[in-house]
Amino acid sequence: MRTVIVAAGGQVDHRVKSYISEADLLLAADGGAASILELGFVPQAVVGDFDSLDPDVVSGLGECELVRVQREKDETDTELTVRYALERGTDAITLLGALGGRIDHTLANLILLAGLAKKDIDARAITPPLAVYAVAKRLVIQGTKGDLVSVFPFQGSAEGVTEIGFKYSLADAYLDPFAVVGISNELASSEGIIEVRKGVLLVFHYHNEK
Amino acid sequence: MRTVIVAAGGQVDHRVKSYISEADLLLAADGGAASILELGFVPQAVVGDFDSLDPDVVSGLGECELVRVQREKDETDTELTVRYALERGTDAITLLGALGGRIDHTLANLILLAGLAKKDIDARAITPPLAVYAVAKRLVIQGTKGDLVSVFPFQGSAEGVTEIGFKYSLADAYLDPFAVVGISNELASSEGIIEVRKGVLLVFHYHNEK
Repeated sequence: MRTVIVAAGGQVDHRVKSYISEADLLLAADGGAASILELGFVPQAVVGDFDSLDPDVVSGLGECELVRVQREKDETDTELTVRYALERGTDAITLLGALGGRIDHTLANLILLAGLAKKDIDARAITPPLAVYAVAKRLVIQGTKGDLVSVFPFQGSAEGVTEIGFKYSLADAYLDPFAVVGISNELASSEGIIEVRKGVLLVFHYHNEK
Repeated sequence: MRTVIVAAGGQVDHRVKSYISEADLLLAADGGAASILELGFVPQAVVGDFDSLDPDVVSGLGECELVRVQREKDETDTELTVRYALERGTDAITLLGALGGRIDHTLANLILLAGLAKKDIDARAITPPLAVYAVAKRLVIQGTKGDLVSVFPFQGSAEGVTEIGFKYSLADAYLDPFAVVGISNELASSEGIIEVRKGVLLVFHYHNEK
């Protein structure tokens, strides 16, 4: 089951429509509901404290489930929405509008993705032309030769890292969490394969937009 | 010795002038040189492959040292500039223009900061109103009651985390690298103290601008 969650933290425009229309479960994290309605969709549920939700948006939501949480909480709205999806048995989560807003929120969302990958959930955040993947085993990305791809060990070291199909390859490498070696690699053809034996990688794929 | 490095990745405006004027050593990472000249300063050295450096900028640099590195390299220009500063014995580094550009570059710069903190270098990145600190021991921040402060364990777990002077305190806490618990705390007065016994924290301080 593929869940798409629209957060309120970053830009969401027509380029994400294809992701939304392929969702088995479409959720909004609080203010993300407004973005979904603007794109012509209705979420199945909205999770949040609703402090950033306009009354007009609420009336546009129709029969949608409203999961209201208390305002003083440890978790972000996006995190609570992810939890809602996991409880319903999702095995793949795409975050939209989760990158490029406040930098601490962006980092929190990257940490959230990494935590999902560790739980064996297929986890990514999309803000076209950028797709960020959290990888705890293996990832195959499709793109165009020359696409920029950056790979970082995240929240710890990474062992047994292999990258195939890139300008610079890696084979069974150890990546130190405090050194940056994997920035601005390039796809050598239309497909790249990234594997990691231990640890979590974040993969940033900038699609070349014509 | 306090080094200020201006990178090419994020916004640099008049609000960073006070940081530049207090630098013992002022360095530009490649295209960051243009931002320094625009603000009316001249760096002591520019480090980079100069692929983003305009000829007009080069002529404005006067006697400034140009440290040219090869275009195909593992390190980012900012990382090479940091290395230049460390070789000259700096014990405090402020990055300007290092946040808010391409997200992978922002993350690379956060990793760079964290690595500096581990080496006992006083490390921060400033993009007003945001200041990001990497902390491996102790940090005292000055601000205004109500300022938002987010704290994350970074590139691994953090142990013995204590936060004093905030709306929500922590005492000798363990922070899981894959859980987000420290987002959007608030300064309870004009000063906050953050300590960590093992690991590295990233501290995001959003100054309340009047």
